[in-house]
Amino acid sequence: MTQAKTGEPAASTGFVRLALDIGGTKLAAAVIEPDGRPAEPIRVPTPPSDVWAACRDLLTEVAAGQPVDAVGISSAGPVDLPAGSVAPINIPEWAADGFPIVAAIENHVPGARVRLAGDGVCAVLAEHRFGAARGEPNCIGMVVSTGIGGGIILNGRPVTGRTGNAGHLGHVVVVDPDGDPCTCGGRGCVETVASGPHSVRWAQAHGWTGADGKQLAEDARTGHPVALAALERAGRAVGSVLASVAATVDAPLAVVGGGFSLSGAPLWDPLLAAVAEHAGLSFLHGFRVVPAELGSGSSLIGAACLVDDPTD
Amino acid sequence: MTQAKTGEPAASTGFVRLALDIGGTKLAAAVIEPDGRPAEPIRVPTPPSDVWAACRDLLTEVAAGQPVDAVGISSAGPVDLPAGSVAPINIPEWAADGFPIVAAIENHVPGARVRLAGDGVCAVLAEHRFGAARGEPNCIGMVVSTGIGGGIILNGRPVTGRTGNAGHLGHVVVVDPDGDPCTCGGRGCVETVASGPHSVRWAQAHGWTGADGKQLAEDARTGHPVALAALERAGRAVGSVLASVAATVDAPLAVVGGGFSLSGAPLWDPLLAAVAEHAGLSFLHGFRVVPAELGSGSSLIGAACLVDDPTD
Repeated sequence: MTQAKTGEPAASTGFVRLALDIGGTKLAAAVIEPDGRPAEPIRVPTPPSDVWAACRDLLTEVAAGQPVDAVGISSAGPVDLPAGSVAPINIPEWAADGFPIVAAIENHVPGARVRLAGDGVCAVLAEHRFGAARGEPNCIGMVVSTGIGGGIILNGRPVTGRTGNAGHLGHVVVVDPDGDPCTCGGRGCVETVASGPHSVRWAQAHGWTGADGKQLAEDARTGHPVALAALERAGRAVGSVLASVAATVDAPLAVVGGGFSLSGAPLWDPLLAAVAEHAGLSFLHGFRVVPAELGSGSSLIGAACLVDDPTD
Repeated sequence: MTQAKTGEPAASTGFVRLALDIGGTKLAAAVIEPDGRPAEPIRVPTPPSDVWAACRDLLTEVAAGQPVDAVGISSAGPVDLPAGSVAPINIPEWAADGFPIVAAIENHVPGARVRLAGDGVCAVLAEHRFGAARGEPNCIGMVVSTGIGGGIILNGRPVTGRTGNAGHLGHVVVVDPDGDPCTCGGRGCVETVASGPHSVRWAQAHGWTGADGKQLAEDARTGHPVALAALERAGRAVGSVLASVAATVDAPLAVVGGGFSLSGAPLWDPLLAAVAEHAGLSFLHGFRVVPAELGSGSSLIGAACLVDDPTD
């Protein structure tokens, strides 16, 4: 367990603000610095059970005895903002019935302002505040990784929708609506075409003998035809979804992050080509898609952004 | 030219509010009644040129000498809300460079509050206020007609996006991203699969000998296999787009209107089946798609809604 740098309490209040990022693989928490970014976080693997205890202990550890007046939470989805709960598909203990994370934290830190959003929303919020979408009040974020997620910022504010789940871009239907079944219960979702693991499986089904997304990208870079085809397929699917979402919400910029987005030209060339082919409407001329700048810490940064405005 | 019923001026102010609906085929205008709905409108065909003069004369006629303090405008898209202009693809005189409709009306009716939105947004705003989405603060609207348009209401307010063009659902990419070119300049847009004219053309290309969407629907109802296949293809495409948009914006309800939406079970059965197949996410359980209630006058009603709140 890494030692966190203890953030300085805000001189004016003596309180600290915390950010917490809940994922299927790891939990991360940090004190929020005066500039609004999280300090170096403490990370722990997400345990198979007693996930709340792990979150609580992490928050206690990063707070290091200082009084806490706000906690921003990023969570894998789906979330339920009106209920203050989360039911991440990839946290088995919580997936079926959800977990009332907001109440749990309010109970753990009485009097603290607690704000929750999905991890895709937090990622784009971070890129909007500190990263590739700085200064752009209207932008689409997509995270292409083990799964595909996303979020939308319009007029400088996250689009939440009824339950806080707006931005589930991985479940936009592409190409072959009769395609692979999706873990969401639907079919043809872009996640089943373009996520890292699905791209790997497609390549393997077509004769590629590699094991993971990183190797797929390397092999594509050195010209392996099946690896190239897998990334072209993924890139085109992502690009067509981004054009579709741009037509839906009218934003001039999309930011794409996540581990699989680092696959280089073999993914980005077809992605950008698909955007150019499909974003035909006049108000989408100049629609840009750029790589994320903040890396895998963006959800935690976005969690910090949630509590940046003390009046919010 | 039909005689409009002259609306009563609001007793408290002596002023009337007007609604104007600008379309590629016709222009319509009416006085807004105290209940917020337009009175019986005057309609004129959209002329091939001097479109502004036709709009201006229409507004003068419906105002019938009464002072006007607000004008709500629905326009075929694209619009440019920051610029106050419109550049409808289907109004050749305005399509290339746009027309500054807000300034023109402000000039024509000095001192009036002028509000503009795209016709798809106005249609869903009307259904949200008076129609099939009454009481639902989060809903998706789609109009399936000569083209396919739409709009989105979240938290009771229209989603506009950067330029006011959010909701261009006809340009969401479906099924075959390498499909037919679209008038928008893109390819594979759902409009090229599921609009009335495109469905007719597909049916004709597959041996159906009818002439228009109405006949297509009639023939499908009586079991003509090609007509049925055309409507099934259209319905599935629309349903998959609605599921995609629901995952994007997190709304529990979609309202589908427009002339081609009146094609009955041969369209709606596959539409609803596709929604059920693709809307798998937990927060989309219970996602409903219903027919619009307000008919072809919904854009004008939505234009009236734009000026309903004097403080807006």
